[in-house]
Amino acid sequence: MTLHDYWRSGAGYRVRIALALKNVPHDRVTHDLRTGAQRLPDYVALAPQGLVPAIEADGLTLTQSLAILEWIEETWPDPALLPADASGRAIVRSMAALVACDIHPLNNLRVLNALKADLGAQQPQVDAWIARWIGDGFAALETLIARHGAGFAYGDTPTIADCCLVPQVYSAERFAVDLTPYPHIVAVAARMRAIDAVAAAHPSQQSDAD
Amino acid sequence: MTLHDYWRSGAGYRVRIALALKNVPHDRVTHDLRTGAQRLPDYVALAPQGLVPAIEADGLTLTQSLAILEWIEETWPDPALLPADASGRAIVRSMAALVACDIHPLNNLRVLNALKADLGAQQPQVDAWIARWIGDGFAALETLIARHGAGFAYGDTPTIADCCLVPQVYSAERFAVDLTPYPHIVAVAARMRAIDAVAAAHPSQQSDAD
Repeated sequence: MTLHDYWRSGAGYRVRIALALKNVPHDRVTHDLRTGAQRLPDYVALAPQGLVPAIEADGLTLTQSLAILEWIEETWPDPALLPADASGRAIVRSMAALVACDIHPLNNLRVLNALKADLGAQQPQVDAWIARWIGDGFAALETLIARHGAGFAYGDTPTIADCCLVPQVYSAERFAVDLTPYPHIVAVAARMRAIDAVAAAHPSQQSDAD
Repeated sequence: MTLHDYWRSGAGYRVRIALALKNVPHDRVTHDLRTGAQRLPDYVALAPQGLVPAIEADGLTLTQSLAILEWIEETWPDPALLPADASGRAIVRSMAALVACDIHPLNNLRVLNALKADLGAQQPQVDAWIARWIGDGFAALETLIARHGAGFAYGDTPTIADCCLVPQVYSAERFAVDLTPYPHIVAVAARMRAIDAVAAAHPSQQSDAD
């Protein structure tokens, strides 16, 4: 099994955390997003969006980190990253989607580049744009964790919600977003990062890191 | 069970299609996004992001359309909206996430408003922004449907990928995006719309439609 990835990809980082928590052996092929390597024809033939992450396994290429997380959970069920009950699964998936649909897509590299190239945004405007969507999303996520968490985002063990939360906190820190309004998010991220497998999935620990 | 919705919400439309295909009885409470009704305190207490759709059921409020679609599938399994095999489920979920993560979030009302209010974008720039992300996403989705579809986005029966595709085509038509480069997408949308349950989920058929 091969993971197509880039060290600073937030979506790739989610998948690395899940694979590490489940101790799934895999190769890793990297694509430098800064040089547009993910848009080269050979990769686009595999992954038509030309984005990372993607997983090659069993002759298929699987894309989109949320779909990959579900596939990992189904293929290697232990330790479980989804609760046993349907309501719990729905809450966990909603937290993951909050990050993956309503924060991350607005702040990834190609969108920030488009703000500058297509709309003439200056860096302070881009910084405010980033902070706005992280702030909106984190305010709601903070409430949901206060309601449903018990050490982790949902309950007392890691779930796919935590796999999505940690990379988003990393991104917020990179962009110098003030996290003091979100003590539950900060506490969950710290607890996750204290797990050796999660620490090994950190961008700085990847072979292609600067 | 109550669905919190707005007739023109693309994410709400996804959920309406799934509920209709499975013939799930439910009430519908509407929130007019144009007046900001979804940000009123009573609703935000239920759904902290202040977004539609949300489902109230069994004393819980479930948010995020992708999470709701999975919950609907688990709670009312027939007719199935996910394939029986893990690889098939991963492909279907990746198509749904392509729309829900990489197209829709960039083009929804609050983001378009922010482009204008925060970045000073003029309407032609906003129109180009919308067309760009729909075009990028649809080009990849077209390839995936050509690879995996057989009448519907994946295989020969509707899945959650189709539940996400139909509202995105509706949005593309509203924004006058040229769909001729995407014959598979157009054909799948037409086949879905010919299903009575899907037609009943159309924005124009909702009680709060203009």
